[in-house]
Amino acid sequence: MTRMKILTERQLRSIVPLDREAVACVEEAFHALATKAVAMPPILRLDIPEHRGEVDVKTAYVPGLDGFAIKISPGFFDNPKLGLPSTNGMMVLLSSKTGLVQALLLDNGYLTDVRTAAAGAVAARHLSREDASIATVFGAGMQAGLQLEALALVRPIREARIWARDAGKAEAAAREMTDKLGFAVSAVVDPVAAVSGADIIVTTTPSETPVLKAEWLQPGQHVTVMGSDTEHKNELDPHAFARATYVADSLRQTRRLGELHHAIAARLVPAEAEFAELGQVIAGMKPGRTRAEEITIADLTGTGIQDTAIATLAFARANTADASTTFDS
Amino acid sequence: MTRMKILTERQLRSIVPLDREAVACVEEAFHALATKAVAMPPILRLDIPEHRGEVDVKTAYVPGLDGFAIKISPGFFDNPKLGLPSTNGMMVLLSSKTGLVQALLLDNGYLTDVRTAAAGAVAARHLSREDASIATVFGAGMQAGLQLEALALVRPIREARIWARDAGKAEAAAREMTDKLGFAVSAVVDPVAAVSGADIIVTTTPSETPVLKAEWLQPGQHVTVMGSDTEHKNELDPHAFARATYVADSLRQTRRLGELHHAIAARLVPAEAEFAELGQVIAGMKPGRTRAEEITIADLTGTGIQDTAIATLAFARANTADASTTFDS
Repeated sequence: MTRMKILTERQLRSIVPLDREAVACVEEAFHALATKAVAMPPILRLDIPEHRGEVDVKTAYVPGLDGFAIKISPGFFDNPKLGLPSTNGMMVLLSSKTGLVQALLLDNGYLTDVRTAAAGAVAARHLSREDASIATVFGAGMQAGLQLEALALVRPIREARIWARDAGKAEAAAREMTDKLGFAVSAVVDPVAAVSGADIIVTTTPSETPVLKAEWLQPGQHVTVMGSDTEHKNELDPHAFARATYVADSLRQTRRLGELHHAIAARLVPAEAEFAELGQVIAGMKPGRTRAEEITIADLTGTGIQDTAIATLAFARANTADASTTFDS
Repeated sequence: MTRMKILTERQLRSIVPLDREAVACVEEAFHALATKAVAMPPILRLDIPEHRGEVDVKTAYVPGLDGFAIKISPGFFDNPKLGLPSTNGMMVLLSSKTGLVQALLLDNGYLTDVRTAAAGAVAARHLSREDASIATVFGAGMQAGLQLEALALVRPIREARIWARDAGKAEAAAREMTDKLGFAVSAVVDPVAAVSGADIIVTTTPSETPVLKAEWLQPGQHVTVMGSDTEHKNELDPHAFARATYVADSLRQTRRLGELHHAIAARLVPAEAEFAELGQVIAGMKPGRTRAEEITIADLTGTGIQDTAIATLAFARANTADASTTFDS
């Protein structure tokens, strides 16, 4: 007989909030990526153009962890016409020792939201100035709010700004976040003003043309770019590479999918240029920020190790809280 | 609220036996692969050498089908020491229109066994002589028996032979299959004798060195090779290519994983040589067997379309039979 746990989105929201432990588990995963024999195969990608659909499957094995996650992330962009969210998905947690399924995490993408925000916090902890207190987000979606929430876990954020293409959405998001986060969040119509004086800038848009210009950046700023998870997405003006210290979540991925990909395509960076990865900075193997006036960029495309890390945390908490359904077959 | 069906191995064994409909659905899938804009990305493969483990993830979208499967197939080769089977796994069936999970098929590899055997029947139907009545299998495992069962669905099999490295296992398997299949199955110790006079030969071993020599093959025989699903497996003497008409399940896969891979590596076949795929033979786009005395080879590495086909059949039958658990979240 096989026994597995099934956790629903509601249960997962209750036991895996975006908190310091979530940030720590993602940080450890990046550390492992730099220091252990992590296996992280290329993303499996299926396209269904008839229905404007795509599915990504990611996985990674981190030596020492009892389990590893296989994440199925569908995005079907006509779903809103049917009253359904564009993205959903689930994770399967398998035992590293036997391959048996330990848990089905029916999170509809919630754990991805948490581990993505947590990666933003990890990048800010290791690349932004320690006294960073003003944060700007580009984009007014759910991840914009989670990024601010995550930043506040690692830096003394006291003011935040939101710029979005749709000023009305930026206003609404700013009101909502002010209520939730406990510091002032304001919508700013002019992106140049939104960037000026900010310590940390996080871009969370699905843009296919740069929304953040290189010349807007100021000494000492840290930029986390997290919208680009497919080839055609591009948020950051590639000229920024000439002004900044660049760090990738996974160079293999950012060379193909991230902002680095666009800088290489624009011939502003050689295809084989070496950069630090976030895990190497965490492990002290490569420098991150070395001076207060340095500009730093973290290019986050989303990695399978983050999924394995957050799924492992969810499973551990489900065992403690007993917040799951046991399914025998 | 999201609603999905969960089907256990026991339920799936009851509603998806190896029958003519299973063969027909796999045949249709191969036909679609040749004639429709099927999307079948490369297999995602994760290795966990510490625990002698590996996981393959396969998927394919067939235009016109309401769903597509993502199959997770772990193989952990120390499991028998723990009293567990080496292979297990499950399939997730997603809607082609919305990406929502329709069903979790907790089959522990059962559906893979059925669709693999069904592919053997499809290959025999399109490549072996219509009067083929003597079948030989190499290997004494579960798939050896299923292959004979599948062949009997499409050809007038009246006698079968089993050769296996372990003669005792071959004897036991032969007794068991004779009881089950309704025709005589005998164990043969000499592989040359096992092949001589057979109309169809199916190899189902995990061998890494050829078990079937080219010079043993006789005019008119059809060979299905199905053990090779990773780079290092090799059942067929690559010199057989010079004597036979070769058909792949998927050339992209067999060039990398199948017997073709070894023939290319041995420089017996040019790397870019063109061959027919099974779906093209089914669709009449390329010739298969053209003469009674021709020797034919089907190289089956296992494809994502077979998984999508059998998962779709399972889901349709579950809806009719109501043999499943409904899970709301």
